[in-house]
Amino acid sequence: MEKITLAKDLEFSRIVHGHWRLGEWNLSDQELLALVEQCIEWGITTFDHADIYGGYTCEEIFGKALALKPELREKIQIVSKCGIKLISGNRPEHSIKSYDTSKQHIITSAERSLKNMNTDYLDLLLIHRPDPFMNPEETAEAFNLLKKQGKVRHFGVSNFSPSQYNMLQSYCDVELVTNQIELSVLHTDSFFNGAMDHCLEKRIAPMAWSPLAGGRLFSGSDEQSIAVKKTMEKVGAEIGAESLDETAYAWLLAHPGRIMPIVGSGKKERIASAVKATELNMNTEQWFDILQSSMMREVD
Amino acid sequence: MEKITLAKDLEFSRIVHGHWRLGEWNLSDQELLALVEQCIEWGITTFDHADIYGGYTCEEIFGKALALKPELREKIQIVSKCGIKLISGNRPEHSIKSYDTSKQHIITSAERSLKNMNTDYLDLLLIHRPDPFMNPEETAEAFNLLKKQGKVRHFGVSNFSPSQYNMLQSYCDVELVTNQIELSVLHTDSFFNGAMDHCLEKRIAPMAWSPLAGGRLFSGSDEQSIAVKKTMEKVGAEIGAESLDETAYAWLLAHPGRIMPIVGSGKKERIASAVKATELNMNTEQWFDILQSSMMREVD
Amino acid sequence: MEKITLAKDLEFSRIVHGHWRLGEWNLSDQELLALVEQCIEWGITTFDHADIYGGYTCEEIFGKALALKPELREKIQIVSKCGIKLISGNRPEHSIKSYDTSKQHIITSAERSLKNMNTDYLDLLLIHRPDPFMNPEETAEAFNLLKKQGKVRHFGVSNFSPSQYNMLQSYCDVELVTNQIELSVLHTDSFFNGAMDHCLEKRIAPMAWSPLAGGRLFSGSDEQSIAVKKTMEKVGAEIGAESLDETAYAWLLAHPGRIMPIVGSGKKERIASAVKATELNMNTEQWFDILQSSMMREVD
Repeated sequence: MEKITLAKDLEFSRIVHGHWRLGEWNLSDQELLALVEQCIEWGITTFDHADIYGGYTCEEIFGKALALKPELREKIQIVSKCGIKLISGNRPEHSIKSYDTSKQHIITSAERSLKNMNTDYLDLLLIHRPDPFMNPEETAEAFNLLKKQGKVRHFGVSNFSPSQYNMLQSYCDVELVTNQIELSVLHTDSFFNGAMDHCLEKRIAPMAWSPLAGGRLFSGSDEQSIAVKKTMEKVGAEIGAESLDETAYAWLLAHPGRIMPIVGSGKKERIASAVKATELNMNTEQWFDILQSSMMREVD
Repeated sequence: MEKITLAKDLEFSRIVHGHWRLGEWNLSDQELLALVEQCIEWGITTFDHADIYGGYTCEEIFGKALALKPELREKIQIVSKCGIKLISGNRPEHSIKSYDTSKQHIITSAERSLKNMNTDYLDLLLIHRPDPFMNPEETAEAFNLLKKQGKVRHFGVSNFSPSQYNMLQSYCDVELVTNQIELSVLHTDSFFNGAMDHCLEKRIAPMAWSPLAGGRLFSGSDEQSIAVKKTMEKVGAEIGAESLDETAYAWLLAHPGRIMPIVGSGKKERIASAVKATELNMNTEQWFDILQSSMMREVD
Repeated sequence: MEKITLAKDLEFSRIVHGHWRLGEWNLSDQELLALVEQCIEWGITTFDHADIYGGYTCEEIFGKALALKPELREKIQIVSKCGIKLISGNRPEHSIKSYDTSKQHIITSAERSLKNMNTDYLDLLLIHRPDPFMNPEETAEAFNLLKKQGKVRHFGVSNFSPSQYNMLQSYCDVELVTNQIELSVLHTDSFFNGAMDHCLEKRIAPMAWSPLAGGRLFSGSDEQSIAVKKTMEKVGAEIGAESLDETAYAWLLAHPGRIMPIVGSGKKERIASAVKATELNMNTEQWFDILQSSMMREVD
């Protein structure tokens, strides 16, 4: 599988495995390990986490599987995120949902992620959401300290607008290496609101969350979902896709922006669809056909 | 007539003649040649085309007129555009409307424009619309090759937002020299959404398409059109304009942004209105009076 | 009271006294002088004016009070603004409301402000509103001349978007030192639309106008106002605030962006609330609790 270079010393697999719903997969440690090894065999070496996934539980579940075979660590890249505080039985000190990008919170959260995942370092740590109360000097200090201590190798953001990205970057000694954003055939805003322009201008490859639109692509009964699905079935047949999943991934992979889709499934066959999609070729008219179904009109 | 410097070796006339509707003018080659010569006599030396105008027919019509008097070529500047693919009997290979800013499409389109217009070079080639599927490296390569071969002297864009412009520029060896945008008394968005700020900041003089709002200024029966027309009649009387056209052009010409209105008429008297407008002076209060009629409220 | 450094040789007090409604305070010159001296005693040394306040009357009222004790001048910083032309009996030559950022208007307006306020210099002159008809070369020339003549020490803007700010800055020899924007618990747009990102990126401390939302915070019966007020009362009790005013100021002061609230009251006790707020500490959860009441939803 193709590798995407995010920094001189950081390569991600084109397809990323996302552990957002890891807690719902009901896998034993051994089963999860087997799934991770299957991913690695397919070339998927990058795994996407966040402190809050599963109500602060997913990283620990992953850590237990990784502990069964620690030698896997150097073959994979682990991404985590911090900056959101959820109301959760696991964080009784939180009285409301809020953001926190203070030095102390970032460091505490990253250190907990390391402990939970049984690892000495994260390959990448993202600020999960743009924080309107951010003190960028503190955020940058946290990055510097975590890097110096070898706890986090690289830093990035998620769901940031260009102005939020540029602002934070201006305070950082490190280069931010990605922006993880929502992108799918049903969520095309980033192609029009400047987010993708910004990635291309800054030579940043974005990670795409919800590349299947959170399932709406399959079950949506709204006019847009139905139209997109119909066009995708037509294009899918033309390009040799065997499922809607493949066509949805192929649409993102065809874009010149080096988009890295995050596959959030615990089922081998769903992950295989993303792997298969990397072999498909979609031409420009086919790409626009799907886009225009999603826009529910022609381009201008 | 005033010249606008777009680059060291590229000057446009302040008023540009637009050949969008050339096919509807029903002029013989000789009549079109006479119209072009009349424009040149008035100082209008810049002619605006696009591959797709008239369903891919206008450039050839213009080329036939130009072939009657090839020595005109060095007295004029020819602008063309590419990047849109229309469904058309003249392009049976297009199954849907779409954009294409690939290296191959840009080069093929530019070469066809040269052939159709009986010329060895374009003074300026624009990407017609921002392309959400753009591979900016390819687009930049096409520009480099066309420039190196002497087929296109300068490059620019049309309808690009600041972020789209900056993104493409960051991949180009050449300096983009203009952004052709919609601007008129009834279409004032660019004065508020950052587009004109961007032009001023980058020292780019924009070309203005639909400077008469596509006729809505004359025939519109909506509240905004009526209000603007009324104020324009008042201001027009004050500044010595003899028609709504003149006042509409004078409003654009008064702006400090060196706006180049594209006059899209095949009638001498309509073109003459634009020429006359370059002699009119509109003061700041008059300019705001028209703007505020268009906003249908006072400024803050 | 904390000082905010806007430039090497320009420090403002964290709280600014705003003279927008000075004409409605019905103070004698002696009473106004006493109020100003009270402000200075509290550490409020910066006073915010504009040519147009009170229909072009406030600066003269202030100037009369200042004339009673000219030695105060060197202890304070005076801000004025220009660029809006109001319909007013005091400016019979204005036929409509409009903007004017021409060299001549800026210089004339600044010189009138100096005369009206009985002072030789302004510490800061702001362009009051972004002007869609701005000729930035002229505006920059006016700044250069006023600075060279010693009439204005520094320059800035008000209500400018990032693109408007960057555009004007690109023409100026001087560094713009602030953007005065609307900011309050009921007007949080600037935390989301890029305005605060821009201030942080450019290391500009913004001045905040209407920090109490023009009174809607107290009297508003809409759902948002009621929700915000309720949360502010809760948070206010937690942080030791004695009034809604204090909590509203504390919310702005807690933000890392070095926001300078402009207190627009002529009553000592209201001004005292802002002074007291500088001693209060609001934590991150409390800040988000108020923000989310204003958003009428949780953060994402």
